Amino acid sequence: MNKIVCFGEVLVRLSTNNALRFNQSDQLGFHFGGSEANVAKSLSQFNLDTSFITRLPNNELSKCAIQEFQKYGVETGQCVYGGQRLGIYFLEQGAMQRASSVIYDRSHSGMASLEKGMIDWDHIFKDASWFHWSGITPALSFSAAQAVEEALEEAKKRNLIISCDLNYRSKLWDYGKKPSEILPKLMAYSNVLLAGINELSVCLDIEPKEKNETITDYLEDLYKALKKKFPSLEHFASTLRMPLSSSHHKWSGVLVSNGALKASKTYDLTNIVDRIGGGDSFMAGLIYGLIAYRGEPQKIVDFATAASVLKHSIHGDVNMCEVEEVLELMNQKEPSRVKR
Amino acid sequence: MNKIVCFGEVLVRLSTNNALRFNQSDQLGFHFGGSEANVAKSLSQFNLDTSFITRLPNNELSKCAIQEFQKYGVETGQCVYGGQRLGIYFLEQGAMQRASSVIYDRSHSGMASLEKGMIDWDHIFKDASWFHWSGITPALSFSAAQAVEEALEEAKKRNLIISCDLNYRSKLWDYGKKPSEILPKLMAYSNVLLAGINELSVCLDIEPKEKNETITDYLEDLYKALKKKFPSLEHFASTLRMPLSSSHHKWSGVLVSNGALKASKTYDLTNIVDRIGGGDSFMAGLIYGLIAYRGEPQKIVDFATAASVLKHSIHGDVNMCEVEEVLELMNQKEPSRVKR
Amino acid sequence: MNKIVCFGEVLVRLSTNNALRFNQSDQLGFHFGGSEANVAKSLSQFNLDTSFITRLPNNELSKCAIQEFQKYGVETGQCVYGGQRLGIYFLEQGAMQRASSVIYDRSHSGMASLEKGMIDWDHIFKDASWFHWSGITPALSFSAAQAVEEALEEAKKRNLIISCDLNYRSKLWDYGKKPSEILPKLMAYSNVLLAGINELSVCLDIEPKEKNETITDYLEDLYKALKKKFPSLEHFASTLRMPLSSSHHKWSGVLVSNGALKASKTYDLTNIVDRIGGGDSFMAGLIYGLIAYRGEPQKIVDFATAASVLKHSIHGDVNMCEVEEVLELMNQKEPSRVKR
Amino acid sequence: MNKIVCFGEVLVRLSTNNALRFNQSDQLGFHFGGSEANVAKSLSQFNLDTSFITRLPNNELSKCAIQEFQKYGVETGQCVYGGQRLGIYFLEQGAMQRASSVIYDRSHSGMASLEKGMIDWDHIFKDASWFHWSGITPALSFSAAQAVEEALEEAKKRNLIISCDLNYRSKLWDYGKKPSEILPKLMAYSNVLLAGINELSVCLDIEPKEKNETITDYLEDLYKALKKKFPSLEHFASTLRMPLSSSHHKWSGVLVSNGALKASKTYDLTNIVDRIGGGDSFMAGLIYGLIAYRGEPQKIVDFATAASVLKHSIHGDVNMCEVEEVLELMNQKEPSRVKR
Amino acid sequence: MNKIVCFGEVLVRLSTNNALRFNQSDQLGFHFGGSEANVAKSLSQFNLDTSFITRLPNNELSKCAIQEFQKYGVETGQCVYGGQRLGIYFLEQGAMQRASSVIYDRSHSGMASLEKGMIDWDHIFKDASWFHWSGITPALSFSAAQAVEEALEEAKKRNLIISCDLNYRSKLWDYGKKPSEILPKLMAYSNVLLAGINELSVCLDIEPKEKNETITDYLEDLYKALKKKFPSLEHFASTLRMPLSSSHHKWSGVLVSNGALKASKTYDLTNIVDRIGGGDSFMAGLIYGLIAYRGEPQKIVDFATAASVLKHSIHGDVNMCEVEEVLELMNQKEPSRVKR
Amino acid sequence: MNKIVCFGEVLVRLSTNNALRFNQSDQLGFHFGGSEANVAKSLSQFNLDTSFITRLPNNELSKCAIQEFQKYGVETGQCVYGGQRLGIYFLEQGAMQRASSVIYDRSHSGMASLEKGMIDWDHIFKDASWFHWSGITPALSFSAAQAVEEALEEAKKRNLIISCDLNYRSKLWDYGKKPSEILPKLMAYSNVLLAGINELSVCLDIEPKEKNETITDYLEDLYKALKKKFPSLEHFASTLRMPLSSSHHKWSGVLVSNGALKASKTYDLTNIVDRIGGGDSFMAGLIYGLIAYRGEPQKIVDFATAASVLKHSIHGDVNMCEVEEVLELMNQKEPSRVKR
Repeated sequence: MNKIVCFGEVLVRLSTNNALRFNQSDQLGFHFGGSEANVAKSLSQFNLDTSFITRLPNNELSKCAIQEFQKYGVETGQCVYGGQRLGIYFLEQGAMQRASSVIYDRSHSGMASLEKGMIDWDHIFKDASWFHWSGITPALSFSAAQAVEEALEEAKKRNLIISCDLNYRSKLWDYGKKPSEILPKLMAYSNVLLAGINELSVCLDIEPKEKNETITDYLEDLYKALKKKFPSLEHFASTLRMPLSSSHHKWSGVLVSNGALKASKTYDLTNIVDRIGGGDSFMAGLIYGLIAYRGEPQKIVDFATAASVLKHSIHGDVNMCEVEEVLELMNQKEPSRVKR
Repeated sequence: MNKIVCFGEVLVRLSTNNALRFNQSDQLGFHFGGSEANVAKSLSQFNLDTSFITRLPNNELSKCAIQEFQKYGVETGQCVYGGQRLGIYFLEQGAMQRASSVIYDRSHSGMASLEKGMIDWDHIFKDASWFHWSGITPALSFSAAQAVEEALEEAKKRNLIISCDLNYRSKLWDYGKKPSEILPKLMAYSNVLLAGINELSVCLDIEPKEKNETITDYLEDLYKALKKKFPSLEHFASTLRMPLSSSHHKWSGVLVSNGALKASKTYDLTNIVDRIGGGDSFMAGLIYGLIAYRGEPQKIVDFATAASVLKHSIHGDVNMCEVEEVLELMNQKEPSRVKR
Repeated sequence: MNKIVCFGEVLVRLSTNNALRFNQSDQLGFHFGGSEANVAKSLSQFNLDTSFITRLPNNELSKCAIQEFQKYGVETGQCVYGGQRLGIYFLEQGAMQRASSVIYDRSHSGMASLEKGMIDWDHIFKDASWFHWSGITPALSFSAAQAVEEALEEAKKRNLIISCDLNYRSKLWDYGKKPSEILPKLMAYSNVLLAGINELSVCLDIEPKEKNETITDYLEDLYKALKKKFPSLEHFASTLRMPLSSSHHKWSGVLVSNGALKASKTYDLTNIVDRIGGGDSFMAGLIYGLIAYRGEPQKIVDFATAASVLKHSIHGDVNMCEVEEVLELMNQKEPSRVKR
Repeated sequence: MNKIVCFGEVLVRLSTNNALRFNQSDQLGFHFGGSEANVAKSLSQFNLDTSFITRLPNNELSKCAIQEFQKYGVETGQCVYGGQRLGIYFLEQGAMQRASSVIYDRSHSGMASLEKGMIDWDHIFKDASWFHWSGITPALSFSAAQAVEEALEEAKKRNLIISCDLNYRSKLWDYGKKPSEILPKLMAYSNVLLAGINELSVCLDIEPKEKNETITDYLEDLYKALKKKFPSLEHFASTLRMPLSSSHHKWSGVLVSNGALKASKTYDLTNIVDRIGGGDSFMAGLIYGLIAYRGEPQKIVDFATAASVLKHSIHGDVNMCEVEEVLELMNQKEPSRVKR
Repeated sequence: MNKIVCFGEVLVRLSTNNALRFNQSDQLGFHFGGSEANVAKSLSQFNLDTSFITRLPNNELSKCAIQEFQKYGVETGQCVYGGQRLGIYFLEQGAMQRASSVIYDRSHSGMASLEKGMIDWDHIFKDASWFHWSGITPALSFSAAQAVEEALEEAKKRNLIISCDLNYRSKLWDYGKKPSEILPKLMAYSNVLLAGINELSVCLDIEPKEKNETITDYLEDLYKALKKKFPSLEHFASTLRMPLSSSHHKWSGVLVSNGALKASKTYDLTNIVDRIGGGDSFMAGLIYGLIAYRGEPQKIVDFATAASVLKHSIHGDVNMCEVEEVLELMNQKEPSRVKR
Repeated sequence: MNKIVCFGEVLVRLSTNNALRFNQSDQLGFHFGGSEANVAKSLSQFNLDTSFITRLPNNELSKCAIQEFQKYGVETGQCVYGGQRLGIYFLEQGAMQRASSVIYDRSHSGMASLEKGMIDWDHIFKDASWFHWSGITPALSFSAAQAVEEALEEAKKRNLIISCDLNYRSKLWDYGKKPSEILPKLMAYSNVLLAGINELSVCLDIEPKEKNETITDYLEDLYKALKKKFPSLEHFASTLRMPLSSSHHKWSGVLVSNGALKASKTYDLTNIVDRIGGGDSFMAGLIYGLIAYRGEPQKIVDFATAASVLKHSIHGDVNMCEVEEVLELMNQKEPSRVKR
């Protein structure tokens, strides 16, 4: 297996501590996030050779972002420097019945002003075998959407496996195009899709049928509709989150491969530490699983789900877990003895 | 709606962090509390015009207390300066099966030595329409009780709506009078009463009947007894807390208006962040509801209960929530999605 | 004395703690700054009736900014809501021979997109007697510069005293105009000017003469040149900072009124806690002095300088000192006994 | 009742904060642990006269360890100074489905190089009536095992009651002897045994019978087998922990005295603060119970279990609870009201 | 040398961190102070057998205070429990030109309501050879002054050496007596006196002569006057503090024994960490010196001064230094190499 | 310029915060140090291609150490895993007249049990042009000294430039050899030497002549003696530290190249943040200077000294400064303006 290339925006994450509200805080946690960045870091923790591509301004904050990639072993040598600012998001961590809330401050970033031709894909893809993107970059600006298409073309040319996390964020689509005008064309290049079932209509114009069938049938039907519209698609996955409160969720994952659905067990997530990045950790687990457990869809979805369960126990956006830890949870009988 | 005047003592709150015990702590959280102060701040967060009246010494700690009121928009320009010290309470936050514990250090405070005539009620009530007091001030000293009575007379004269949180604290009544010698006279001025059902006997000499009726019947009977003794009373409310541990409670509220009882749904409070001030946040929600949803008792009790549920997720004594957040919880189908 | 109106941008300040570098930090101090905002808060601590006018987006961060003004007693009821974002600055606190460094992230803010006509000056100036602005707002955008001019016209019409802190920031002037094309016109309205002597040429086209005279003569000559070009000018002040390291400065102030220069004593600032906002604290001290000690220029410059000395001992942008504290330093024989 | 002597190793405990992983931490909690040390501190909190005996190097870290014993009233005047280093353990606190993990760094410690004859047991046992040891010390080195035997002989000679916590740690037994070659000889001196039912085979060569009987019968049979092999044994206790996640356990205790088993109720431990030292807190509760409630085995096991429940709510290794707090939990009807 | 008994009040110390002001703080450092308590802890760190006697209420805060004494090896078994509250002082740490400030909140404490006969001096003095008191206790109340006199009589009866730190606090003398009506009588029992030269007049009615002599002559004359009025006096010491700012002092000590003055060198204290307790650390160093270096007054004053220099580098009220560290500073040629 | 290889031990650094003593601390800073590791990280910050070689056990702490290297861009792919433990040092940061103190706990580490043949130097030196070692590794054990010799032989074979920091630590030489039996042989391979002038005698048997010459002459004579004994030596450098207190040093550097001495200016280091690693930062600056300013010895020593000045302003062992920052200090006229 060669290098996995992840492409997207890295964001400064400024988060309240200990369930404080913004107006009770005089310190904010200073970390980095961004969906594709989170995937890259998690893949690297799984010991896969991973590279992250973004565009960011040349300042001390960017240096910090880059050093965090380096810390976790993600290669960043091909990032492009430029643009006015690094995107930021402010996170107020919820608790109990109080929801977490996010303030995006990411407009005018280096990635938003990215244009076709700025990135040297030829160099980047030399020793790559996988390309990962998400629906966030095309949501930033039209020129960014075009830059994604360029990347996808180049990846396709070289026969890379292409994975996409649809990641629909309604607030971001403000440059005059609807997702469904942009994303289907990009989706057509992709072999692996992670998406919430409610995003498919608005993003890909996939109209679900009547819902009075079982969830299994429903997802298998969705897969057929996707497969028909996007023949390159091989694997469609989705996470199922049921929040009981900010601190307590039910969580599971499903994977449809070759038309057949496999579902993980459902985990009971109490005392959640940090739910941001849960989907990204599933995405990374999915990529790992597709590589390590080819042809074993049950194992793949079990791995991805267990990985994302562990993420909920970890502060920050990133799933700082190794393969052994995921396997331990995935296979365990009696949970959570102290290891000593 | 004109100004709401809250009258009572503001206390320094010195609390342990992160479930530490006092003898494990070398830092204490430094905030402010006090039942009526908490009500005032919450009302101001609900965008009601609110004023707080107290007596406190003229030092830097008092300045901090006043600045915190100002931060949350509570008017404090009519506070009176004097007395030896600011009351303090030390709070050791419990966890799991270990109870929280409070050490009061509030004797000899400015409010304890308050006397009739020290406060210019004429000025204060000029543009007021509501007066809120609690059973704590009359518990501090006989002269403080007399000062409450003076305030109530002045409020009544001007036809203000008067609300009372009975707030029985057995440790405070140490100046030689029993609550039942003092409180009924003060209660007689009041239109709204929040009280625990076990406090009514010791504070107001209201003897509950046999308890083998339903809780609804029981509370409606109590209301009748109260109404008979205190004809001014219009609304009687109570919160029902069932602690399973320091971190897990069941919580609901009831309101009896015009003899008919309305109960909120019962919330399951897991992973409680801070339960101090839960009753005060209900009181503020009740006042808000009585003003905003006049004639809709179910909505009133639902609002007050949802407000107090959110309080449990917030550090400190005060419910730092806005009306929209309360409504969102009150009306929500699926809870606690990240807002982004 | 009626209300003082300060007009400018409020910025989120995100600063490293304890002399850490950005890439050593996982927490950033979360406070608020902005030159004119700092002046307003300091004036309010001096017990002057102060109002702050800005334009900012309607989100939770803005609410925090507003609540901090309220905490310190600054009126903000006439602020205007709009724009994409709140400006931010990141501050890495220096130490010893290592300089502090600032990353501005303030473009596209509510103030940068401010336009003439958005603010109701008629209402704002009703009970005002002083208007304070700085050279930062006209540096943000051409429309913001026009909005400043509008404010100045309105202030002049009502005979308010007008003070200006020139505050030249070379990085901000990027909209195609030079400071000297914009600022002289605005300066013409102003009665009080605080400026570094090196800013006068680039901002106001005031060419200093040969420097082989004494500093006193030099500044008095500058004053004459300023007075000639801007006949409304009455008071010209400047601070003199000589940094020996990030932790050790020499600091003094001068004031030229009616052509005569008064200089404060020079303070030796060792163990500096936070030097950001030093100039703003001098500006506030100057305004206070001009009001409280009219006709006593020595006392005015002594007060302004002592105020700004104290600022260096205080974390954050704002001089949280009261008049008594400034006077105590200004008049003290033996410094810094514990007050007990 | 005279002095209780606890004998074992004190360890530096370096633990992550707030569920952070090691590689997210730039601060580690700095405390002290060690099974027998934890027992000693808890007994002293229960107001029993307690002495701790260990061997440790003469440096500042040891001084800290000693001062923590002194803080909690444990006598340490007879400790012996020597050896290269103080043992350390690094603790990464788990959360949710992620397990806690411990890195031991305790080889070459003062206790590991302890030898027979280094400790003046004659002096120590002068006014003692109880001696407590655990299976950890004999696991450190052969010479340490011999030193334990010496202590046990001396204790037996003086008719002290002897208690043992078996505390099997497989990683420690690396000096060429199996536990079953060492521990039975030491166990033979002991009157009280706390052990997990799975440790008995490897440590004491007690082979459990078929498990198709009830747990009660099973434990009573084990007791018989133990009693037969170790006639000095009077009380055999065990804790039953069922972890659902790192944050949620079921927990109870059993005691077999004179052949009859008493079991405590089963507690539901949600929102666990710190589970390290849970067994030690039970051991201390057991010793207290055996002294205070002689002949009341139900009360003894109830006390030990309630004590250890409270431990789970307390940061660090040590159960910082007093007898009154344990009794309150043990006897309570409605849990966890705020004490005020 | 037998036990040293220190008698006085222990205070909760609540202090701001990192040079923050009270109104910037949401955490306060939680420690303990009190002049005589500080002396006791420092003496115990010097390995002298030390006992502390006070009266304090029976609550969790007192338990913390007692445990801190125990941590540092001070015996507290003879303390008396009673009174309403523990005294508190709030400390805002100054910096640079900004002074530290203290808010006392110590009225109505256990020590203020202490009365003659409450303490069992017979038991306490059994194995004691030194008694230390300060001018603070007689300042609390008339009954406390009487209790001091009782202690002094009992100490005298048993031929203990008696030392006094005059510690004049003008704010405390509010019960209707002047210091000079109370203190001379108490001083008459004492053999060692530490006092500022400006306190002697108001406290002891010792009128200094004309000051146009040298400081040496002046102090020797003072000593003669003291000796004449208080024939028991053997040693008179004073510290000389010259603050240049809150962070920078000059500091030295003098001792007059048998009429001859010895002065320490003058230390330059830059980057002061915490100056509270500086005098107390000198007092403890003086007692240590008088015991360890009897007849070597130069060594005594050098030790006391070096001890108090080190105190300024340590957070909190107490000089956490051992004899070796003091000697190292006292004798050092080149200061402050890293010890490794 | 190809890769620089640094070889040595990485240590866990556990340090007190904010000038606290060990026994006041319940948190310790958790970072990494070790002389050669510090050099490697600093070189990488200077944008030189750097590789670090060590031997360490395979556990989570080692992973943290490795990730910190990665963060700063140091290559660690050729490190060898093995040994019992990672070395630790505990650091109590001094302040004022109180010295910092270090407790080493590094025996039995992976590096101490390193043996010849364990490291694949052939692979490591493939693209290397510089090899750096220090006198610490040969001090750990005889086998480690042999491993250093092996490395030096291999480096010499490939004509790498070899630099050595003598770093004499008397406490480490405890395996039966004197430094002068081991180090001269190793020194013979080296081209660059950094050493304190007092270390030369004990480590290299270089006896300095009478000291009544000037320091310049003295150092030039030393250089001649060194050159005579170690003909490979080209550059000899030394730092001159004069501590006035823990917080205030004078600091300069000297370099003797080709027999001629160049000295930097002397810096006044007040308000020192962290002096640990000062020498290592000079070493890294020296290597950088020798590469970037070949033939300009004044510039080289100025760069090395300025780099190490900046280190004193930075927490932790490592000089987190870039070349531009060093040049700015080296060339600056007026220091430490805020960069904005």
